[in-house]
Amino acid sequence: MASKACILLPFFILLLVSSAHSSKKKQYKPCKHLVLYFHDIIYNGSNKENATSAIVAAPQGANLTILAGQFHFGNIAVFDDPITLDNNLHSKPVGRAQGMYIYDTKNTYTAWLGFSFVFNSSDYQGSINFIGADPMMNKTRDISVVGGTGDFFMHRGVATLMTDSFEGEVYFRLRVDINFYECW
Amino acid sequence: MASKACILLPFFILLLVSSAHSSKKKQYKPCKHLVLYFHDIIYNGSNKENATSAIVAAPQGANLTILAGQFHFGNIAVFDDPITLDNNLHSKPVGRAQGMYIYDTKNTYTAWLGFSFVFNSSDYQGSINFIGADPMMNKTRDISVVGGTGDFFMHRGVATLMTDSFEGEVYFRLRVDINFYECW
Amino acid sequence: MASKACILLPFFILLLVSSAHSSKKKQYKPCKHLVLYFHDIIYNGSNKENATSAIVAAPQGANLTILAGQFHFGNIAVFDDPITLDNNLHSKPVGRAQGMYIYDTKNTYTAWLGFSFVFNSSDYQGSINFIGADPMMNKTRDISVVGGTGDFFMHRGVATLMTDSFEGEVYFRLRVDINFYECW
Repeated sequence: MASKACILLPFFILLLVSSAHSSKKKQYKPCKHLVLYFHDIIYNGSNKENATSAIVAAPQGANLTILAGQFHFGNIAVFDDPITLDNNLHSKPVGRAQGMYIYDTKNTYTAWLGFSFVFNSSDYQGSINFIGADPMMNKTRDISVVGGTGDFFMHRGVATLMTDSFEGEVYFRLRVDINFYECW
Repeated sequence: MASKACILLPFFILLLVSSAHSSKKKQYKPCKHLVLYFHDIIYNGSNKENATSAIVAAPQGANLTILAGQFHFGNIAVFDDPITLDNNLHSKPVGRAQGMYIYDTKNTYTAWLGFSFVFNSSDYQGSINFIGADPMMNKTRDISVVGGTGDFFMHRGVATLMTDSFEGEVYFRLRVDINFYECW
Repeated sequence: MASKACILLPFFILLLVSSAHSSKKKQYKPCKHLVLYFHDIIYNGSNKENATSAIVAAPQGANLTILAGQFHFGNIAVFDDPITLDNNLHSKPVGRAQGMYIYDTKNTYTAWLGFSFVFNSSDYQGSINFIGADPMMNKTRDISVVGGTGDFFMHRGVATLMTDSFEGEVYFRLRVDINFYECW
């Protein structure tokens, strides 16, 4: 009897080992999932109170109150946008999306993003850091979650962006589906 | 006797397995720790020799020699700051902190950071890459160490920033406690 | 016999465990390798059609059509550069390198890079995200691959940059050797 258990146990352990290993390298099921929205109102020279972002850099010939021509190529905008749990701009923010976007193509709308979600509420504490390319005209775009702190200590993953609303050059809202694959 | 060992050994192995696994996913004790300081002197139009950083972007209405109003919202500064082992600006630098900070809130002081520590000395060789949000008014702020090269090949971790000195808009010094949790 | 197997098996498993662990932490052989080139033509005020990048930020006293003095310190350039499989500017692009470089030293040429490779072709689908310091005067420079999407889902690694061609301030071409050490 003991000897039978003894033969079976190692196999059982082997299974555990291999699942421990594959859970690291091949787990495509997220260990954590969040859906959040953030809201961007660009400064146009006359909406100082409401604006949440501002153009701060532009190529030669462009100015800082109107997005540049050629698909805004070369514009850098700095933002501090409210994050909400639903798609309502007026919902209570659970955090702030802070960083920059850079328009970086001459013949279509694309941006390069470097930003963080910063939380300091009963919902979440800590931050999530993102970088990646955003080909805005695509329905969904994936960027990288490259790190986190607090509740999101050392997390990594992929965030899928969707343009949830787009009102000319006045307001846009992004839906962000965050899938963490390393959770610690 | 053999049969007893045989029953105990698997449990011993099981312990090993689970500790191997948790050392990856749950090890909150850093595998490497560094404390460094860096020093920033912003260009104000008349300190060309000493300045280590410069404002290069600003929102409409602001200029590049004085940090913007509204908590400097929209300013981007590029820096090349000396890194020292202690908090003395005049200590021999062990490397350079290079990159940018972006002031990104209208109603308090916060920044978004993207920068690297670059080492080429007998102390350290290689680089450490950081991004994250810096709510400066907090005593400590955590940002992500998202990668490294050379001595810091593939490292990841969390860096805790503390403002060690702040002299108006002339000079600031940050203490950086780097905790690596993936060391390779 | 059973009892002998029972004593040996655990050791065999122990070996497996330790190799599983070390394959995570000590694998210095890349799990994937790519060599790509990208090509940058900076906007100088009169090459609107051909330019792939533009200066969008500069320190006080500099302008946006000529790189600044002092080793271009403080210039931010936004780029959308073609990626090719060989070193010929006119080869069919397999993707775009999009993001920014920041000149960040006053006494030599260095840059801080934040950019993505964006692929949407039969060769590759998805994106690779990079950040790091680029001391350009070195023959080779290592930056971090901090994440990826699509074919490069969750990948991490190190990219080695080499200046493959440099024609004054008109054109440069970088060779990028990407070594992924986490492939998923």
